Amino acid sequence: MSIRKHALKIRCLGLALFIIVSVASSQQKNSLSDQIEKYQNIAQRLLEQGLRELPSYSILEKITSVGHRLTGSPGAAAAVELTRQIMMEMGLKNVHLEPTTVPHWVRGPEEEALMISSVLGDHALSTAAIGGSVATHEDGLSAQVIEVKDFSELERLKESAAGKIIFFNVKMEPGTLNTFSAYGKAAAYRVRGAVEAAKRGAAFALVRSPTTANDDFPHTGMMSYEPGITKIPAACISTQGADLLSQSLKLDPDLKVFIRFHCQNLPPVRSYNVIGDLPGYEKPEEIILLGGHLDSWDLSPGAHDDGAGCTHALSALYLIKALDLRPKRTIRAVMFMNEEFGGSGGRDYAASEKRADEKHILAVESDRGGFLPLGIGINADDATLDRMQKWMPVFRSIQIHWIRKGGGGVDIAPLGKQGTVLGGLLPDSQRYFDVHHSGRDTLDTIHPRELELGTIALSLLAYIVSEEGLGPHMK
Amino acid sequence: MSIRKHALKIRCLGLALFIIVSVASSQQKNSLSDQIEKYQNIAQRLLEQGLRELPSYSILEKITSVGHRLTGSPGAAAAVELTRQIMMEMGLKNVHLEPTTVPHWVRGPEEEALMISSVLGDHALSTAAIGGSVATHEDGLSAQVIEVKDFSELERLKESAAGKIIFFNVKMEPGTLNTFSAYGKAAAYRVRGAVEAAKRGAAFALVRSPTTANDDFPHTGMMSYEPGITKIPAACISTQGADLLSQSLKLDPDLKVFIRFHCQNLPPVRSYNVIGDLPGYEKPEEIILLGGHLDSWDLSPGAHDDGAGCTHALSALYLIKALDLRPKRTIRAVMFMNEEFGGSGGRDYAASEKRADEKHILAVESDRGGFLPLGIGINADDATLDRMQKWMPVFRSIQIHWIRKGGGGVDIAPLGKQGTVLGGLLPDSQRYFDVHHSGRDTLDTIHPRELELGTIALSLLAYIVSEEGLGPHMK
Repeated sequence: MSIRKHALKIRCLGLALFIIVSVASSQQKNSLSDQIEKYQNIAQRLLEQGLRELPSYSILEKITSVGHRLTGSPGAAAAVELTRQIMMEMGLKNVHLEPTTVPHWVRGPEEEALMISSVLGDHALSTAAIGGSVATHEDGLSAQVIEVKDFSELERLKESAAGKIIFFNVKMEPGTLNTFSAYGKAAAYRVRGAVEAAKRGAAFALVRSPTTANDDFPHTGMMSYEPGITKIPAACISTQGADLLSQSLKLDPDLKVFIRFHCQNLPPVRSYNVIGDLPGYEKPEEIILLGGHLDSWDLSPGAHDDGAGCTHALSALYLIKALDLRPKRTIRAVMFMNEEFGGSGGRDYAASEKRADEKHILAVESDRGGFLPLGIGINADDATLDRMQKWMPVFRSIQIHWIRKGGGGVDIAPLGKQGTVLGGLLPDSQRYFDVHHSGRDTLDTIHPRELELGTIALSLLAYIVSEEGLGPHMK
Repeated sequence: MSIRKHALKIRCLGLALFIIVSVASSQQKNSLSDQIEKYQNIAQRLLEQGLRELPSYSILEKITSVGHRLTGSPGAAAAVELTRQIMMEMGLKNVHLEPTTVPHWVRGPEEEALMISSVLGDHALSTAAIGGSVATHEDGLSAQVIEVKDFSELERLKESAAGKIIFFNVKMEPGTLNTFSAYGKAAAYRVRGAVEAAKRGAAFALVRSPTTANDDFPHTGMMSYEPGITKIPAACISTQGADLLSQSLKLDPDLKVFIRFHCQNLPPVRSYNVIGDLPGYEKPEEIILLGGHLDSWDLSPGAHDDGAGCTHALSALYLIKALDLRPKRTIRAVMFMNEEFGGSGGRDYAASEKRADEKHILAVESDRGGFLPLGIGINADDATLDRMQKWMPVFRSIQIHWIRKGGGGVDIAPLGKQGTVLGGLLPDSQRYFDVHHSGRDTLDTIHPRELELGTIALSLLAYIVSEEGLGPHMK
């Protein structure tokens, strides 16, 4: 073969290769744009079905109708049965309960806090015992108050702390855009205030509610005790109450606060996670889990925390069924019990022998309220995240602005330790801590369309992952 | 020179060029990343100042305190003077009023609508005359009702329309994500209902309020008459009232509706746009305008429509001043008068001889409520939009998810015709039409942090454009 012929052959081969690569790449491109079009059509149908019918609001109405759902309460038991029935009515398969043991703390019938000042007169303060707190003495307690701005100040003032009420007047930082980050810092005083105060010999921990709202609602939540440290009672007061107390202390440093409440730590009780499936027709053992937690705090029916999350999961399956979309992989809704009081439901779910034949490829928790969804957090490696970005045109069409690293939740964290990719729905956080753990977390703070958009986002995410998988080839 | 030397020289030149290009490109890159860092710092300071102090909510509290601000009303006049004073107190320069002539329509003291049925009994319907409507006869009118679903149905039923009440029971489509688009379709019946009904000889146009909210608030708004077509009166009823009337008509097609209201079209009056500047220190004649409209409908104090927009503009200038940021170009706040009743304020502003020495390089209107901002629309060519995209890392840091083609507004449209680039703040629209033009558009539906985030977005946009310009070189 002459050199010239050889060169020609190479050129021909090169051209052929170019054509093959071009065609393949264009086919790939077409295939992707076809897929995006397919999912955009589904997204549009989910939007129309969801926004016209608003099934999420109807379901949330039912869940909140049982009252609060604190672990061990009659409301929590009712919610287990109610959501089981909702799943049955929706025609989910494999609907069942899985047991978990939960704490049983009960708030007393009355909670009193009174600021007593010979200079300023007496003023009642709206108060709520912090979850898990021991009771005060039956007749209550009355003591002088030491106001502190952080734990360091408590340490500096420790010599005068004995027998006093330590008033943690720590404002949740309003200048932070992400309210969850500001909340975390402020809530540390609710969680650890009693232990730190007790270490200095104080009699009581009184905590400014971790919220930027300026109102008279105390916010409760979880606290911890430590072995070897005296268990002193602890309560929250409202932000307005905290401001009043702080101003009053400037005018009368000797004022006292009287406080009395009779909460009880009763023996743990048995409760349940509630589970229902849309079985996959191709890979039923591969599971995409959507979950929220059924328990709430006891000052309200927990419409946002986490009635909304439970509703998102239930309604997402409802929408997928309503559109007659049969998933390749199983899409499962789990109502976890006991996120608020220790997380036993999530641990028991992951540890159950029922999981032996199942493979959870994605678990998504919605536990940030029923507000307008903005994005989706996925706690996966960069390569998986990158692959998910290609669906962004579809998610943008339902007003989900981003998919970013992040997400997860207390209930699904144990699955994450077993290798499941975790995700979370991320709604706007600006209004969440106005209502969180307070008497304001009621159905009337939920907007039906905002709630439904969360459901639509989760149904779309679950369906795409059911079709495409999450692995290296997304098949 | 030998060929070899020549080749070497070329290689050296190539290398030198490569180094120059690389260094230049890396300098450009550094310069951009420096700029982004600079503006991100400013964004962070704007966030902290805004979210800590919440100046927008304080200003909106003042604006809504004067009551409704319908063109020609005492509230509108009070708002002109109030916002002038706010500008003076903020230390703005060039604070002045510019005159504009506005319609003066006044709702009557009482508005009655009563469904009268010998079968079903009588039921009162909450009603509101549509803005600009003529009054009913002094004693009201009573007539049978023809319900229609669109203008085509009216045309089909025209033979029986004479002397009747045409009931436009057109639901605002809930399945549309962008509520403004669904609103536009439904509101057409409020705007043109009376004319189309009158063409068929009807006596009255009764219109279902264009909202997806299920409540008992009628929503008013603008309507039009046409020369040569009898001016018949028109009113809206609430969505619940519309559903009741529709169901009742099925049970008793002969029922009548009695309706009476005594609104008046009075002679036009003089009112004002209110204007104040943060003068640019380098190019004071180049103006970045932030605006909202001061007038509202008369069923509420127009907290969202458009108290929020006026507040956004005022507070954006306040924040820039509070941070001691001196703009290169002039940043101007304009409170336009009469967006709702014909747009004279915007036209007169653009046509004023005061504009002769000014060059408006960007005008941004906020007239979509005080809800959570999602993005910014810019009505510019693709090249300008592309250049603005480079600031997205800065905007994302304040939770503005996108800058897209779009934006504008009734008040700034006349500037757009003169070549000014127009923009608009685009908050979430899910809750807007619940309150829009109804008695529900009150301060308590405003969340201080959501409102402030709109202000922060506009202050950042205005400041960056003041520094960088919008032209081909953005200098």
